[in-house]
Amino acid sequence: MYFASDNRGPVPQEILDALTAANTGYTGGYGSEDLMTTVRQQVRDVFEAPDAEVFLVTTGTAANALALATLVDPYDTVFCSKLAHVHMDECNAPEFFTGGAKLTLVGDGDKLTPEALKHAIEEEENRGVHGPQRGAVTITQVTERGNVYSLAELSALCQTAKSYGLPVHLDGARFANAAVALDCTAAEMSWKLGVDAVSFGGTKNGLLGVEAVVLFDKTKAREFELRRKRGGHLLSKHRYLSAQMHAYLTNDLWRRLARAANDNAQYLLNGLTKRADIHIVNAVQANMIYFEAPRALHQSLQAEGLDYDVQGGDLHTGPSEMLLLGRFVCDWGLPKQDIDRFLNHLDRQ
Amino acid sequence: MYFASDNRGPVPQEILDALTAANTGYTGGYGSEDLMTTVRQQVRDVFEAPDAEVFLVTTGTAANALALATLVDPYDTVFCSKLAHVHMDECNAPEFFTGGAKLTLVGDGDKLTPEALKHAIEEEENRGVHGPQRGAVTITQVTERGNVYSLAELSALCQTAKSYGLPVHLDGARFANAAVALDCTAAEMSWKLGVDAVSFGGTKNGLLGVEAVVLFDKTKAREFELRRKRGGHLLSKHRYLSAQMHAYLTNDLWRRLARAANDNAQYLLNGLTKRADIHIVNAVQANMIYFEAPRALHQSLQAEGLDYDVQGGDLHTGPSEMLLLGRFVCDWGLPKQDIDRFLNHLDRQ
Amino acid sequence: MYFASDNRGPVPQEILDALTAANTGYTGGYGSEDLMTTVRQQVRDVFEAPDAEVFLVTTGTAANALALATLVDPYDTVFCSKLAHVHMDECNAPEFFTGGAKLTLVGDGDKLTPEALKHAIEEEENRGVHGPQRGAVTITQVTERGNVYSLAELSALCQTAKSYGLPVHLDGARFANAAVALDCTAAEMSWKLGVDAVSFGGTKNGLLGVEAVVLFDKTKAREFELRRKRGGHLLSKHRYLSAQMHAYLTNDLWRRLARAANDNAQYLLNGLTKRADIHIVNAVQANMIYFEAPRALHQSLQAEGLDYDVQGGDLHTGPSEMLLLGRFVCDWGLPKQDIDRFLNHLDRQ
Amino acid sequence: MYFASDNRGPVPQEILDALTAANTGYTGGYGSEDLMTTVRQQVRDVFEAPDAEVFLVTTGTAANALALATLVDPYDTVFCSKLAHVHMDECNAPEFFTGGAKLTLVGDGDKLTPEALKHAIEEEENRGVHGPQRGAVTITQVTERGNVYSLAELSALCQTAKSYGLPVHLDGARFANAAVALDCTAAEMSWKLGVDAVSFGGTKNGLLGVEAVVLFDKTKAREFELRRKRGGHLLSKHRYLSAQMHAYLTNDLWRRLARAANDNAQYLLNGLTKRADIHIVNAVQANMIYFEAPRALHQSLQAEGLDYDVQGGDLHTGPSEMLLLGRFVCDWGLPKQDIDRFLNHLDRQ
Repeated sequence: MYFASDNRGPVPQEILDALTAANTGYTGGYGSEDLMTTVRQQVRDVFEAPDAEVFLVTTGTAANALALATLVDPYDTVFCSKLAHVHMDECNAPEFFTGGAKLTLVGDGDKLTPEALKHAIEEEENRGVHGPQRGAVTITQVTERGNVYSLAELSALCQTAKSYGLPVHLDGARFANAAVALDCTAAEMSWKLGVDAVSFGGTKNGLLGVEAVVLFDKTKAREFELRRKRGGHLLSKHRYLSAQMHAYLTNDLWRRLARAANDNAQYLLNGLTKRADIHIVNAVQANMIYFEAPRALHQSLQAEGLDYDVQGGDLHTGPSEMLLLGRFVCDWGLPKQDIDRFLNHLDRQ
Repeated sequence: MYFASDNRGPVPQEILDALTAANTGYTGGYGSEDLMTTVRQQVRDVFEAPDAEVFLVTTGTAANALALATLVDPYDTVFCSKLAHVHMDECNAPEFFTGGAKLTLVGDGDKLTPEALKHAIEEEENRGVHGPQRGAVTITQVTERGNVYSLAELSALCQTAKSYGLPVHLDGARFANAAVALDCTAAEMSWKLGVDAVSFGGTKNGLLGVEAVVLFDKTKAREFELRRKRGGHLLSKHRYLSAQMHAYLTNDLWRRLARAANDNAQYLLNGLTKRADIHIVNAVQANMIYFEAPRALHQSLQAEGLDYDVQGGDLHTGPSEMLLLGRFVCDWGLPKQDIDRFLNHLDRQ
Repeated sequence: MYFASDNRGPVPQEILDALTAANTGYTGGYGSEDLMTTVRQQVRDVFEAPDAEVFLVTTGTAANALALATLVDPYDTVFCSKLAHVHMDECNAPEFFTGGAKLTLVGDGDKLTPEALKHAIEEEENRGVHGPQRGAVTITQVTERGNVYSLAELSALCQTAKSYGLPVHLDGARFANAAVALDCTAAEMSWKLGVDAVSFGGTKNGLLGVEAVVLFDKTKAREFELRRKRGGHLLSKHRYLSAQMHAYLTNDLWRRLARAANDNAQYLLNGLTKRADIHIVNAVQANMIYFEAPRALHQSLQAEGLDYDVQGGDLHTGPSEMLLLGRFVCDWGLPKQDIDRFLNHLDRQ
Repeated sequence: MYFASDNRGPVPQEILDALTAANTGYTGGYGSEDLMTTVRQQVRDVFEAPDAEVFLVTTGTAANALALATLVDPYDTVFCSKLAHVHMDECNAPEFFTGGAKLTLVGDGDKLTPEALKHAIEEEENRGVHGPQRGAVTITQVTERGNVYSLAELSALCQTAKSYGLPVHLDGARFANAAVALDCTAAEMSWKLGVDAVSFGGTKNGLLGVEAVVLFDKTKAREFELRRKRGGHLLSKHRYLSAQMHAYLTNDLWRRLARAANDNAQYLLNGLTKRADIHIVNAVQANMIYFEAPRALHQSLQAEGLDYDVQGGDLHTGPSEMLLLGRFVCDWGLPKQDIDRFLNHLDRQ
């Protein structure tokens, strides 16, 4: 189970402690609890955005779909990468929450480029009311292939979007991993570049299931609130979400966890690169390693009980030397000795 | 904060302990964890329904809206009480998740009657494709006014629905409180009467935020799963929902908590009935007391910091003897001494 | 077939002639044809609203649903009468086009009153994000029971809506019949009272299938256009809609047709009132007569082949003296001799 | 205006005559008129499908979106070409009517291939509830680039779809042009290949605005009816749609019109091919010619008042020899002498 995803392992003790600490006395519900006031301020501080509005939900899909629904109209389209989570892994949630907006796939890989984005936006130009209207741009940081956009890259994308008057959403399911990788602040990776709304992930980085949606344009806040409630995503005992986010943002826990995850990936990467038959296909800056390896090697590793995703072909048939894409995801809590054990095992293959 | 709702207090230690117990090692996500297999079996045992399908979500609104969306088509209508949570308190979530189905309000109060239900269903009869089609019936047990339907009453409603071929959904946000009040089993209060789908509440009865949707017609299970994912309601670290529900269903915790809440309500009721100026308006069988009292009394209690809902008029203006409706909700954990202190306070008014 | 509805008879020759006249040469589509420019100006002239935006669609359901979708958000509610066409006869089209907004039923009959409207709006007040938000008010003129609101009544409703900041939509499927009945201008019955959007009906008053949506707030025009296209309601050969509306608004044809229909109703009414067993239940100002009559009489008339709606009970069982509600609708083209023949027939019953 | 589209010219006199013929007496509405019974039988005869269900609507967008909504669920995806009208030119109508289903773009051009279709379907395979589900395949015949699938090609696509259990929709906005081009029957181009639902276009082939949706699986008929009404696409004076379709299917008018249009395209094509600087890019079998020509030539033609679409670059800037894509669409009524005049004009360039 180790490398399959960063949502398979336990959460840090700090988070459970935070739940215990919050579990006392009677308090307002639905985000009216004092703890949420604290969290709101923490997020504003972390993002250096005193006017930002902050909402907590329990899944990344909800965060993304609600944020996009707040940014676009049902007759619009959202520009995203071909591999974007909103397109691939949310079972039409963006289409659902937006009331039927379209996703326009941009470019060919996991990363948007300003050129491809500009091209896609231009393509939606000439059809008047017949085509969907240009709605928003959503960027995933860290990308679905484990790549981290540089701040310059993000800036260029934001500028392209802005040149057409389009708002930008950042799907930050792994926001923390990226911020640590880039050694930048939350502000530097968001509104300072032109990002309008962030799905600030917590679940993949140590929380039980909490994501914050941060809206830098507070005029959208009321709409978001109503859409959240209408989506069944407003929790009555909201304090247990606040408690998690409170701990997450206290003493930089969010960065410490992400750094641990990223470090684990580097540690694993060092071991992997010794093997000639493993070809790393992404620039490993965060906590994900994408690699090509012969089918036979994948098969052997999986037979040993190692759990990770393999894509691009059938694990069980075809030439043994056929290259398949593998994905290792490291979470904050992965024990170093487990990585060592795996690498030793690999040495013996 | 004491009497405002049953979602304002802490959760039992058993639930936090269950989170801690679940917080170990790597496991499958999205409900594929072993713990969910256990929970599924527990629910089937509790409901004596070996084929039932079980899904966990974090809010009652999600449970209700997803269940209804699975039962009806977008051109249908759902028959519900005028005060139903799905109508009053879910910000159009049922309309959203069903793709635009209507709610048809039945009768005048919180309780459906077979006659009113029959009348409403018949009313939708003559308009062919012009009117909405008859979709489903949803019944809230305990009702929004604190009343508990008897099994005979529920049975009559189910029979009415069935005579028109309509499926029945039970909004059981306070299912446990009702089952304890009626001293019946979960099966006796659901599929044995003809109920097709239950929102089996946990959040108001001691969980952090978990509701189980129980589908007795398993052919609907796949659709439910897809709608849950599309609604952003499939949690990746699902084990923390399973853990709560597991503890809830172990050693009858769900019934013990509900009994404690109901007992608290009876204890409070005994104190209230001593006062001539307080008129109890519901049959208090579960954990809610609705009462009429003079505006001045409400005002004085609220001024003392007692938090509970007042409806039907302005607390701060009007004749002091004007009767306003108050609602006390008792949860499982309400300390007896707090009730005593309140009653003593009341004696001194 | 005669009295069943005002959509059962033929259209005037002027309308067919207009189609023929338009059927020449090549022209722009989708409303870009010159004829639509003319129509737009005609509507602006008729409504004395030089800035109004005008859109043509083929059904009243489309006109209403698109107009409401442009005025409200999905988490809103629309206040309407219990008998409103949008509620009763559009198979959830308003819920569909608005993305799931609710309809809140106001009062008990076909006519809204300011008091009932105010009450309903106030009711939606206290639930914050939990209830739907106040979206818009829709008023049907002529009502579904054949009554015509006076200008003073409409004004009071608009003022009530406005006092809460709510926009007003007028479902004017029989706008012309009402304007003739009240002997007022289109402006006097719409924006001068505070109406923001009108479904200006043509189909029930002599067109093949054309309704104009008139938006007095032109900032909503683009959204309407996009929603119309998205709804499949933008016709490519739009000239054939324009042609009909052009003829309809030329030389007051719309008023002449409505006057003929209303006169037919008065003529029929005069005959009916001679019978003691027929009780007229509405104030017949437009082209609809609602009346109570014994079941036996209804049965006999229908047996003679007279086609009209009967409501409120079973035509074929029950006491012969049981009163059932009948509806006669007169269209512009109903031959007087047919009415005479019917009345003669009635005399012989 | 001549070559811009096949929705810019007049309709044949037969169609106006049919409206006049239908414009007599009182009749049932909403498709209950006798004429629709006749039309239903005509369509069944033309398609050799005695059980087919037939519905009339006024736009191709409505026909397509309603058909797809009847075939798929909101969590599904519809496989279509990158240039499909449903994707490019319907302003998210399919997403709207399906309740948020996705369109998956297949391959790179206007024509689907079995390989590309298979690949796209397989791609949706591995994500379980996370990705959209496989819903349906929609094929456009004639394609948006003027190409006509052979029956063998259509058959292969249908077989691919069927091998995954997916229903097939045929967007036949130019069904008649294709059937004439292939010299095949309606049955041979639809259900005999495995097509489940057809949008049988009339508007681009001489009607004012009527498309028939033909469902070969009649179990879907009721759902379609309800969705049509809910979409505001059920016309009350439905006889005027029936009348058009009746004339269209009488004495093979639909084929005669299409043949005239196709012949016009061939006639024009013959003239165009004489020029070395015009490169025809599609196989002109139906009524559309796509061609590349130097910017300067396009500019000159448009300056002369010739109206047709130019794509792929700016008509007014860039090298004069830059190739831009032009589209000529011929309708049934285009006078030969106008084509001659244009070709003469071209000779003089």
